Amino acid sequence: MNRQIIMKSRPVGAPQPHNFELREVPIPELAAGEVRVENHWLSLDPYMRGRMSDAPSYSAPLEVGDVMEGETVGRVQASRDARFAEGEWVVGRGRWQTHSVLEAGQCRKLSPQIPKPSLALGILGMPGVTAYVGLKHIGQPKPGETVVVAAASGAVGAVVGQLARQAGCRVVGIAGTEAKCQYVSETLGFDVCLNHRAPDLARQLKDACPEGIDVYFENVSGPVFEAVFPLLNDFARIPVCGLISFYNATGLPSGPDRTPLLMRAILTKRLTFRGFIVTDFLADWPEALQALEAAFVAGTLQYQEHVLSGLEAAPQGLIDLLEGKNFGKVVVDLKPA
Amino acid sequence: MNRQIIMKSRPVGAPQPHNFELREVPIPELAAGEVRVENHWLSLDPYMRGRMSDAPSYSAPLEVGDVMEGETVGRVQASRDARFAEGEWVVGRGRWQTHSVLEAGQCRKLSPQIPKPSLALGILGMPGVTAYVGLKHIGQPKPGETVVVAAASGAVGAVVGQLARQAGCRVVGIAGTEAKCQYVSETLGFDVCLNHRAPDLARQLKDACPEGIDVYFENVSGPVFEAVFPLLNDFARIPVCGLISFYNATGLPSGPDRTPLLMRAILTKRLTFRGFIVTDFLADWPEALQALEAAFVAGTLQYQEHVLSGLEAAPQGLIDLLEGKNFGKVVVDLKPA
Repeated sequence: MNRQIIMKSRPVGAPQPHNFELREVPIPELAAGEVRVENHWLSLDPYMRGRMSDAPSYSAPLEVGDVMEGETVGRVQASRDARFAEGEWVVGRGRWQTHSVLEAGQCRKLSPQIPKPSLALGILGMPGVTAYVGLKHIGQPKPGETVVVAAASGAVGAVVGQLARQAGCRVVGIAGTEAKCQYVSETLGFDVCLNHRAPDLARQLKDACPEGIDVYFENVSGPVFEAVFPLLNDFARIPVCGLISFYNATGLPSGPDRTPLLMRAILTKRLTFRGFIVTDFLADWPEALQALEAAFVAGTLQYQEHVLSGLEAAPQGLIDLLEGKNFGKVVVDLKPA
Repeated sequence: MNRQIIMKSRPVGAPQPHNFELREVPIPELAAGEVRVENHWLSLDPYMRGRMSDAPSYSAPLEVGDVMEGETVGRVQASRDARFAEGEWVVGRGRWQTHSVLEAGQCRKLSPQIPKPSLALGILGMPGVTAYVGLKHIGQPKPGETVVVAAASGAVGAVVGQLARQAGCRVVGIAGTEAKCQYVSETLGFDVCLNHRAPDLARQLKDACPEGIDVYFENVSGPVFEAVFPLLNDFARIPVCGLISFYNATGLPSGPDRTPLLMRAILTKRLTFRGFIVTDFLADWPEALQALEAAFVAGTLQYQEHVLSGLEAAPQGLIDLLEGKNFGKVVVDLKPA
């Protein structure tokens, strides 16, 4: 049998456990061109909150009763495609379930060099490539510039900051606990990391960025963006990758309407705001994965996983992720010992 | 004697005649490397409102008592620079006055082909180049795309729309009177032009853009942007060139704060908002001027001037320009017959 978690009801505000339901269904038959995968790892990522909403977005929303969406890593159990053999490790959009039937063309084989399969859901997968392409194509950091990274200990932010350091930038992280800040500055090697819960964040950030901010990698928005905004330099670039502080919002903040301030800054400082998702840059994936894997194997990129145990842990894992309670890339071990 | 108009006081909200003062002063002596120009034409442009404000911007604000800023075209009366001879036509930042002493390196000679000197303040000068570089580098229109141009009969918008048509786009203008709309669609050849004072602008714009909007050339913001915003396609580009609807504002609009809607659209539609001013693209000026001049001389670019008579007309001319009362590029004839 296949165990899976569906969206039982659409959340209003923060998702609650009752919005999810575990069920068991038969494993479907394979058609030509498909593979069946026994999933070992499931990735939890902030974008999943967007899929649970029916607001327009870049992907169709989940319908009530659909299996929750998500990337998985597992081993091929059966294949009706010549490119895949039984026992091979693959990554794909297998959703929140123990077994997935996937189109072979939508699966990617894991590099044989990968030290641990779950890495293909993080630094050596979608979040790592997101960091790589967003920084390269939109952030465009130049040596000596100042790069600020929100959600700095998260799956994307940790990679962004390390790559920006390697590009010769001053890198300032923003994270949500003292322990995260210590990890970001000491282990990841950012120049500074600030706690976004500090009441004087704006002043601390100003002190940490004496020459202003040239790149702000936006994962968060809300109060973090408020602190960043006045420090943006002329010609600053803002890759808009995520807005986690908004995802559980049920309405707009109270007034006045500050949109004119943003537009005016875009004009007078000649800012670039550009949103992206990683699949906009499919042509960059091979280069990005190769660079990330080489750096990781060489020990020049650090990475931390937050491991949850068993499929049942996924709903609370997503709820916690949206509140910043994780520490590192969240993956669910679907076959815990 | 040199007649000039100074900023007598800083306006609050819309400028008033009493914020300006005409005065007469001696013409200063020339130093080495300078030229003295008898100005024939003065350009009035929306950015001048920004210079009258002390809010931070890309240029230092005017101080009370300063001569109003602006571009001028005139003839060299005296030169202490080998590059310029008496009688030559030049364009420079001569300010609101009949005579200017300018650094020679900051002046540009008019092309001998130019049919009328005042064109160097409009389609064959700063506004024309603004349209050219903003569309080329940020708008990046592709054949078959839909381009919406605010302030479509104005100095910049008229050129943007004609260039976008020549690039094979569907072009929808937005202007402020029926007469302007008729001119934009019939003379400038836009596919459609809508009156932004129409109460159902949003619906009209939706009808005029059945395939959505790929490029929105922002000169205006405010209600025009509100109508454009829901129609923006994935990967739309928004060159932010001006925000004339905000320039006289004394505060922010009432709430709620709609910034999250803008950020969310940037992310989910992968929009690019990028502010610019024409001097960010100095390397493009020769190419742009050559292309614009060739097209104008060949009759493939149309252009309309709104001519005011005499320096004394400039203050009311700027007041009117900020309210959209002009029809075409506003220039002041400093030596009316």
